[in-house]
Amino acid sequence: MNTSAVLHAPRSLVIEQRERPVPAAHEVLVRVEAVGICGSDVHYYEHGRIGGYVVETPMVVGHEAAGTVVEVGADVDRGRLGELVALEPGVPDRTCEQCLAGRYNLCPAVVFFATPPVNGAIAQFVTLDAAFAHPAPAGLSAEQAAMAEPVSVGVWAARRGGITPGDRVLITGAGPIGLFTAQVARGFGATSVTLTDVSEFRLEVARGLGFTALPATEPLTGTFDVLLECSGAAAAWRSAVEVLAPAGRAVLVGMGADELPLPVPLVQGRELTITGIFRYANTYPTALSLIASGAVDTTPLITHRFPLAETEAALTLARRDARSLKAVVEPHSA
Amino acid sequence: MNTSAVLHAPRSLVIEQRERPVPAAHEVLVRVEAVGICGSDVHYYEHGRIGGYVVETPMVVGHEAAGTVVEVGADVDRGRLGELVALEPGVPDRTCEQCLAGRYNLCPAVVFFATPPVNGAIAQFVTLDAAFAHPAPAGLSAEQAAMAEPVSVGVWAARRGGITPGDRVLITGAGPIGLFTAQVARGFGATSVTLTDVSEFRLEVARGLGFTALPATEPLTGTFDVLLECSGAAAAWRSAVEVLAPAGRAVLVGMGADELPLPVPLVQGRELTITGIFRYANTYPTALSLIASGAVDTTPLITHRFPLAETEAALTLARRDARSLKAVVEPHSA
Amino acid sequence: MNTSAVLHAPRSLVIEQRERPVPAAHEVLVRVEAVGICGSDVHYYEHGRIGGYVVETPMVVGHEAAGTVVEVGADVDRGRLGELVALEPGVPDRTCEQCLAGRYNLCPAVVFFATPPVNGAIAQFVTLDAAFAHPAPAGLSAEQAAMAEPVSVGVWAARRGGITPGDRVLITGAGPIGLFTAQVARGFGATSVTLTDVSEFRLEVARGLGFTALPATEPLTGTFDVLLECSGAAAAWRSAVEVLAPAGRAVLVGMGADELPLPVPLVQGRELTITGIFRYANTYPTALSLIASGAVDTTPLITHRFPLAETEAALTLARRDARSLKAVVEPHSA
Amino acid sequence: MNTSAVLHAPRSLVIEQRERPVPAAHEVLVRVEAVGICGSDVHYYEHGRIGGYVVETPMVVGHEAAGTVVEVGADVDRGRLGELVALEPGVPDRTCEQCLAGRYNLCPAVVFFATPPVNGAIAQFVTLDAAFAHPAPAGLSAEQAAMAEPVSVGVWAARRGGITPGDRVLITGAGPIGLFTAQVARGFGATSVTLTDVSEFRLEVARGLGFTALPATEPLTGTFDVLLECSGAAAAWRSAVEVLAPAGRAVLVGMGADELPLPVPLVQGRELTITGIFRYANTYPTALSLIASGAVDTTPLITHRFPLAETEAALTLARRDARSLKAVVEPHSA
Repeated sequence: MNTSAVLHAPRSLVIEQRERPVPAAHEVLVRVEAVGICGSDVHYYEHGRIGGYVVETPMVVGHEAAGTVVEVGADVDRGRLGELVALEPGVPDRTCEQCLAGRYNLCPAVVFFATPPVNGAIAQFVTLDAAFAHPAPAGLSAEQAAMAEPVSVGVWAARRGGITPGDRVLITGAGPIGLFTAQVARGFGATSVTLTDVSEFRLEVARGLGFTALPATEPLTGTFDVLLECSGAAAAWRSAVEVLAPAGRAVLVGMGADELPLPVPLVQGRELTITGIFRYANTYPTALSLIASGAVDTTPLITHRFPLAETEAALTLARRDARSLKAVVEPHSA
Repeated sequence: MNTSAVLHAPRSLVIEQRERPVPAAHEVLVRVEAVGICGSDVHYYEHGRIGGYVVETPMVVGHEAAGTVVEVGADVDRGRLGELVALEPGVPDRTCEQCLAGRYNLCPAVVFFATPPVNGAIAQFVTLDAAFAHPAPAGLSAEQAAMAEPVSVGVWAARRGGITPGDRVLITGAGPIGLFTAQVARGFGATSVTLTDVSEFRLEVARGLGFTALPATEPLTGTFDVLLECSGAAAAWRSAVEVLAPAGRAVLVGMGADELPLPVPLVQGRELTITGIFRYANTYPTALSLIASGAVDTTPLITHRFPLAETEAALTLARRDARSLKAVVEPHSA
Repeated sequence: MNTSAVLHAPRSLVIEQRERPVPAAHEVLVRVEAVGICGSDVHYYEHGRIGGYVVETPMVVGHEAAGTVVEVGADVDRGRLGELVALEPGVPDRTCEQCLAGRYNLCPAVVFFATPPVNGAIAQFVTLDAAFAHPAPAGLSAEQAAMAEPVSVGVWAARRGGITPGDRVLITGAGPIGLFTAQVARGFGATSVTLTDVSEFRLEVARGLGFTALPATEPLTGTFDVLLECSGAAAAWRSAVEVLAPAGRAVLVGMGADELPLPVPLVQGRELTITGIFRYANTYPTALSLIASGAVDTTPLITHRFPLAETEAALTLARRDARSLKAVVEPHSA
Repeated sequence: MNTSAVLHAPRSLVIEQRERPVPAAHEVLVRVEAVGICGSDVHYYEHGRIGGYVVETPMVVGHEAAGTVVEVGADVDRGRLGELVALEPGVPDRTCEQCLAGRYNLCPAVVFFATPPVNGAIAQFVTLDAAFAHPAPAGLSAEQAAMAEPVSVGVWAARRGGITPGDRVLITGAGPIGLFTAQVARGFGATSVTLTDVSEFRLEVARGLGFTALPATEPLTGTFDVLLECSGAAAAWRSAVEVLAPAGRAVLVGMGADELPLPVPLVQGRELTITGIFRYANTYPTALSLIASGAVDTTPLITHRFPLAETEAALTLARRDARSLKAVVEPHSA
């Protein structure tokens, strides 16, 4: 059997016994050991939808997963049995124009864990295309490997923002994504990394990781080459874009505002470049190596752990505890 | 003497005799033969200011100039005497961080024709740093050479938008900048170029140049890889950004709106890249070669010519005649 | 049945009746109408091998093909029936690191027409993955569509060389690849394109296409921003690399020499960038649009046409006739 | 007065009293406190020339310098007095095509310390354009600041090689440049850095800095994304280029061989990109910040220090002591 955390309707999560999946020829079957809870999981739990994606039939939640390969399909190297793998949650069609161009994150036919109607990974076992089950470097825990998902967001943001030594990086929003992204930015060689947030708790965590951390309420000073906007808050965007240097780059990472103001004279006068990110492509090996080298420390970010039976507690944690950051569900812990 | 068109106050332009300038060691003295009128010239004429740039002392207008080298400074090759040159209007300090990085258009200390308090080029003679007086290819007229300035805007927009064969390009706004930029986009190999405008006259000119041209009032169909926004109109921006393809790029060329809406889900979901341009850098030789090869045809765009004495008529032309595009002042014509 | 041109051994080509292939679910069946002969086809015919690729079992030759979709697999849109398609000859595995990064031309598991042991396209019918059968723009002939293959080589070379307006391009070697590549370079906006060759006939064709064309025996003068080496000749390389400008780029397109000299002081002192190309990726739509727009004219390059029965004559043409360029085999002509 | 180390002829270095220079309007006068000895200094000392650069009149040697601003020209901010500055040794003309494009290292008119006939920096005092005297971050010693020069070589190599997290970097040659460059590569986020050398001493230093270090005599295993060739040895190049991954990049940093073999099938089949570097541009602030952050540790590299009077001993050190790396001359030490 396959105990799974299934969302039936807003705020209605049921722990169910489902059938254990069988890997297709090119797939692996993974015993899931750790699944991080992401804001999108919480949003589906609270609202049953994100924009046009609506949970219409019961759906397993969770997409930040890692575990052990316990079975392989006919076409997969049997040497992979026993491997600890980080599960890249989106498998694209690999045939469309976007995929062939290497932008598989923009594939319109991607199948992505816990994006309706596709089931997610908070289950004891899942199958995945073998090419998207990335072997974790030696010594990583399942929990660390699972964090390759949010770290990938940071890697993609850093790449799209072109971070390189010499850059002064500003990150607005010090939640899990902001804190992982800040560590990635440092791993890319950023000369300085500054975070802002409204939560003093989060700023303390940021400082504990060695970053400059400032209350979002204070006026920003200084000049920055790259802004990674991780808050989704219009006010943060507005003040941050003002302190970008000529030829500065801004990457919209956070979701929230449907529309942000684009200050035309600033964008033109300083020739700023603004882009957004949608998930990530070709990031997992890099994310895993940043975790393995210690450049990204997951310890201070994973504040809570839950057995599968308590997935609902994991999904409501952020609402209940302002001093929480990332919750991890462990499907095989007692 | 040096007859010059001098703006004293809004709508107060005086034709004056000023002293003929003497070239410094690294400068050339140019007999000015053609100066295009740009929207910014008209704006200074109408309002006496553009944003923070205020005409506080009388200022010669005009910055799209070409003419003949008639004298050279001590350090300049005497072989340049007699050369037809296009005058790049902004001379940067070449010492600041932006200049050393090759982004001299962002030099905070740039000295730019007809940007207060620097005098412009509608005069019989001007001096300019020899490195910014670009030799015109054989066969070009002074008028064509003068158009290297607005064509440079198009070249810079095309470079910043990364136009290359395969790209479907949308240009909102078919005024002189839009029409030059469209020709540049085609010169960069764009697979298709579509223009929109509210003026049927301008659309006709666009069609005459071989482009698809659509009323801005009609809903846009199709998909585009690159948007060069040349209208400065918020409505144009709003509808154009919607039809950008995944990984699409938008360049803000036109001025007008102080703030445009940034549709976050679109920018993220399609990973659009948005940038703005401020003048141009390292574009003059390319602009001149595009004109010389015929890729950019200045003929249908230069609709009116005026002697220096009638500069005021040139500055009011756009207001008076909806079927005008680019006016050129010829300082030495009778 | 399916008449096919099958290479059994060096200089032993047999016209055989083979079984007509049946398209798999994601494939199309194409009635082949035109197949260009490439130097590699000739090399297999003459030597039975290219490097490590050895013809060990009889193999259908040809990989520059176009034709009409006459049958579609279960998963393919039936609307494609009747479409004229250019056949991209290499289908990658789309699962490896190179494929996911968008560099599918470097896929180690690619299946490529007429690269042993994979059969090629000089046959009345072939099947191909539907995503690699590119619809030809309206108005193209099958012969023009077939030329999307060598034109793709030019597109890839132009992209890897970063050709853009302002660039002075030098192409060493004015055979079919050089002549197609020169037209592509012009389509990318190159300010000037110069070709060199040892054959006066080829130089005449180049001149007829509007290019500067120089005997390879004459010393090169001038300075170039981009070199596309299409001759494979060490002497051509040696002299061409000397005339590259600072920050110049060289792309090795031609095959021939196993080793070329890298002049270190030049590469360092001018910071030249040198790369090579292996086939192409994501080029077919662009290649087809360059042909459709007339930017690439196939007429003067296709000097000879043969029915399938005379494939051997097509393969020996270059050896027999110094005034030949590209031969095309038409599998359904009488 | 201004005690200076002056090269008169090969192996003839004289400590002379020269006149103290007076800063021009845009210059600073610097009290020189540390000057590193570079291989090129040694080469001029041994041979009186490097290629076409010949010491024809007595020339002060040394170009890796740092010191304190003790006087400023009329146009320079007096606030800079007392500043510790790293001296970027090459001042370009800032007017040529290369300079305006941001590639000022390729300026044909650059004036560079200790490149005949320009005097170098092993003197008590030198003048330099203020824009090229880079303020050292707080806490740096003069010796550390002087190392911004060789570190700049590494920064430029890392930029030209596009090093970013995920990259496996191979550095052939573990002399001072190789060892600084390796640290820079790690600062750029390289996932792994491997050095090779023939000297066991140098390999030990590399290992002490935390790198994998292998005898150049052993066959290379593994695969690398970026090669920074710092040895100038043809054998190192030959074996290193073989282990580059598809889409790999190689940067020629070391000087030595006039010609290296370019393995065409490899460059094409893997689409390798090869470039060389000539000095550096826009690197000093980044180099200084890498030193200040500790990413680049100068301590194990500076093995010897000499007073100005013993400059000749500094120049012959490498010949005399195989366990030496970088020598620094201190013009004001007793």
